[in-house]
Amino acid sequence: MTSADIGLIGLAVMGQNLVLNMDDHGYTVAVYNRTTARTVEFLDGPARGKRVMGTRTVDELVAALKPPRRIMLMVKAGGAVDAIIEQLIPLLDAGDIIIDGGNSYFEDSVRRTRRLGERGLRFIGTGISGGEEGARHGPSIMPGGDPAAWPHVKGILQAIAAKVADGTPCCDWVGPGGAGHYTKMVHNGIEYGDMQVIAEAYHLMRAGLGMSHPEMASTFRRWGDGLLDSYLVDITADILDHTDERGEPTLEAILDAAGQKGTGKWTVIDSLHLGYPMTLVAEAVYARVVSALHDQRIEAAGVLGPGSQPSKATRHGWGDDFVDAIHDALYASKIVSYAQGFMLLGAAGREHGWDLDYGRIAQLWREGCIIRAAFLDDITAAFTRRPGLPSLLLDGFFVDAVRRADPGWRRVVNAAVRAGIPVPAYSSALAFYDAYRSERLPANLVQAQRDYFGAHTYERLDRPRGEFFHTDWTGTGGGATSGSYQA
Amino acid sequence: MTSADIGLIGLAVMGQNLVLNMDDHGYTVAVYNRTTARTVEFLDGPARGKRVMGTRTVDELVAALKPPRRIMLMVKAGGAVDAIIEQLIPLLDAGDIIIDGGNSYFEDSVRRTRRLGERGLRFIGTGISGGEEGARHGPSIMPGGDPAAWPHVKGILQAIAAKVADGTPCCDWVGPGGAGHYTKMVHNGIEYGDMQVIAEAYHLMRAGLGMSHPEMASTFRRWGDGLLDSYLVDITADILDHTDERGEPTLEAILDAAGQKGTGKWTVIDSLHLGYPMTLVAEAVYARVVSALHDQRIEAAGVLGPGSQPSKATRHGWGDDFVDAIHDALYASKIVSYAQGFMLLGAAGREHGWDLDYGRIAQLWREGCIIRAAFLDDITAAFTRRPGLPSLLLDGFFVDAVRRADPGWRRVVNAAVRAGIPVPAYSSALAFYDAYRSERLPANLVQAQRDYFGAHTYERLDRPRGEFFHTDWTGTGGGATSGSYQA
Repeated sequence: MTSADIGLIGLAVMGQNLVLNMDDHGYTVAVYNRTTARTVEFLDGPARGKRVMGTRTVDELVAALKPPRRIMLMVKAGGAVDAIIEQLIPLLDAGDIIIDGGNSYFEDSVRRTRRLGERGLRFIGTGISGGEEGARHGPSIMPGGDPAAWPHVKGILQAIAAKVADGTPCCDWVGPGGAGHYTKMVHNGIEYGDMQVIAEAYHLMRAGLGMSHPEMASTFRRWGDGLLDSYLVDITADILDHTDERGEPTLEAILDAAGQKGTGKWTVIDSLHLGYPMTLVAEAVYARVVSALHDQRIEAAGVLGPGSQPSKATRHGWGDDFVDAIHDALYASKIVSYAQGFMLLGAAGREHGWDLDYGRIAQLWREGCIIRAAFLDDITAAFTRRPGLPSLLLDGFFVDAVRRADPGWRRVVNAAVRAGIPVPAYSSALAFYDAYRSERLPANLVQAQRDYFGAHTYERLDRPRGEFFHTDWTGTGGGATSGSYQA
Repeated sequence: MTSADIGLIGLAVMGQNLVLNMDDHGYTVAVYNRTTARTVEFLDGPARGKRVMGTRTVDELVAALKPPRRIMLMVKAGGAVDAIIEQLIPLLDAGDIIIDGGNSYFEDSVRRTRRLGERGLRFIGTGISGGEEGARHGPSIMPGGDPAAWPHVKGILQAIAAKVADGTPCCDWVGPGGAGHYTKMVHNGIEYGDMQVIAEAYHLMRAGLGMSHPEMASTFRRWGDGLLDSYLVDITADILDHTDERGEPTLEAILDAAGQKGTGKWTVIDSLHLGYPMTLVAEAVYARVVSALHDQRIEAAGVLGPGSQPSKATRHGWGDDFVDAIHDALYASKIVSYAQGFMLLGAAGREHGWDLDYGRIAQLWREGCIIRAAFLDDITAAFTRRPGLPSLLLDGFFVDAVRRADPGWRRVVNAAVRAGIPVPAYSSALAFYDAYRSERLPANLVQAQRDYFGAHTYERLDRPRGEFFHTDWTGTGGGATSGSYQA
């Protein structure tokens, strides 16, 4: 029986929901899970009465598929993906397609595209964002890999993807090799940043302004109708509104130690490799890391005195309009974060030769994914105005936006610094913004120091780039310059 | 003729100076360089009349050495080191020792220790800091690798190393495998941070206070006699004092685009892998990266308005004692940076089983290296008081120090924020400090969001760690929790 349109391996919640989503769109899906019990549970439960065929072995799965076979992997990123790929290779025929929908590292997707290509098979590494709900009703899908595979999966992937208002699917070919997973990685980095800028607003409202949970919830709801219209702001309002069985805010009981799954970290690491600034996401990742040092924080609060003592009684006399200033700080920081994210995508695109369409990428994130927001339309518009835009901070719309937000942003950072409330993302974004628009930075001193102690040489403002100078700063050193050790 | 005490491969400036240093201490050194011309130049120049034997091939070098042979590599980190190691292996006898003194990545030293150990050979990967001058007259040396090699190189390495006031050498066994190069990597990360906190002080003095170069130089000289007594502060004063042939400050003509050689970046990357905060060093690395976006900055200054317009006429009415506040901001940020650095060393030591002696490591950095400073004695004292100290910020001395600096630090960050002068290191350090001493951080919201969109679950403040909870935030979701995709 070779009747299934696509196979899916890995029936955790994301995998299950993608299967049900495919069924919604008329596709028959053959499924396989390492532990058959889960397959049976799925077939007897959510998949009952759907176009879903259970299989007990990978061989059975392969046998159930129409040619060219399309097999989607929704397994844990890393060795498990390679293991299944190796298991599949001998069972497949030339032209068959493996789609990795996990959070794989983009270099792995580069490697897998090549490995399968050498066997006449086709690989797609695709980012999928949207969590459980997105997977079920329409995620953002960011496929890359072997371009020859795209026509064979385009129909199904665009069918199950989220759609923007005009019906355009939040799924399109991103680029060859690792382009899809890279884009998902940057999405996740930005997601870390978005969550942090919201968390800082919440912290200021709670510990600084002493606002109640209903007050905070309604503020976020109001913000969600304006410039900050976005999924993460909406769910923040839901969370702030949620009460437990005793009527207490559920949020209050949650341990303030955040976990991470790695893709935020990878974004930062790749930015360091490429030499591009991702300061806001870096601070967001580190903020989670610091939150997780829970026991040390308790000890430190004891010996150093508490920083941001949260108390409903703590009001800092910040004024009634301070909430609007927080809004502006959040919005300006978000602009900086996306500016940095798209600068990184640009650098990666040039590095790997991907020829990315930045405006289209912003639309892939417009619906379905965790960072979906009205804001992304402004980004698409900016790249439409100037496709090679080096940074969103050079686009007229964002220039105006950030300048309007500037006074509130600075006011919030100053107030937080005085109150001892950490706002690492807001202050880091502001420092980046001020550095980015500085004609002169103190890096000349850094270069002079490097030349002083390591004879690293420097360039001069009054001479062409590429001419290097060395000063004998103390009048005693030799003339040798360093560069790097050469054997 | 097998008469040389040690061989050295790679006659760039660091290699040459180490050879001359060894000669100072009575050691005969056989030298080899890939291009013989440089060997000849060295022998006819700086090495004339010294106990230095030139060789034209690696075979000649090996033949010139006493057993057990000791061969130090001062070649560019990376493939060149492996290439020479592979060239040497067939020429060496059991028990011979290869010492890599370059800026190698610590994982490479782990691998090379193993590789040579399997051949009966011994490997040492050692950090060496101090630049040209240090190499010539006494660097800081941080050896790790095969402990069996240490007794054979201890004499020579401790002889050429810098000494603290009581004669203790700034060279001691750090630990097995990659411990030496790891320690050097963290040293370099901290060096990036130290340079950045000085650069921010310079920027505030120049662009904010409009101080002249002689005024700035004398301020740094004064600081160098106090709590900030350090090499980098001293050379900053020298640099600020230096004038060109026209009598203009040399520093003014230097292009403000800083380069980097990678080890600062590696420190940040490893901190992300281990999940420990290195926020200040990360901001320092990114500050260099932003400085290098020179053309974009010029464009951004045009469209966004300049941030920190440097001008002798620009004074911000910050008051005469503002320089003291800058001192305190620098000092407090430096404390945070070293606290983060030693937290990372602790995490790495636990991860790799290195059993590091943190107080001794601080003394290895006390003289000879780029970050040498009186400050390091305070760190050694802190670890003597409590060897397992989780963070310097929990030690009484540093608690008092940072609390005294606190008002000036906040004043500087606030003034810089108002003036549009970026102080990424000062503000990031302050945000970390305030987060670290916060009993409550807004990470509960981050956990709630992750549970909302990904069913990631959370822990509760009122329940033991390790118990995980999931909330159906909207009342519509299923009961499945995510964790990770499982096949």
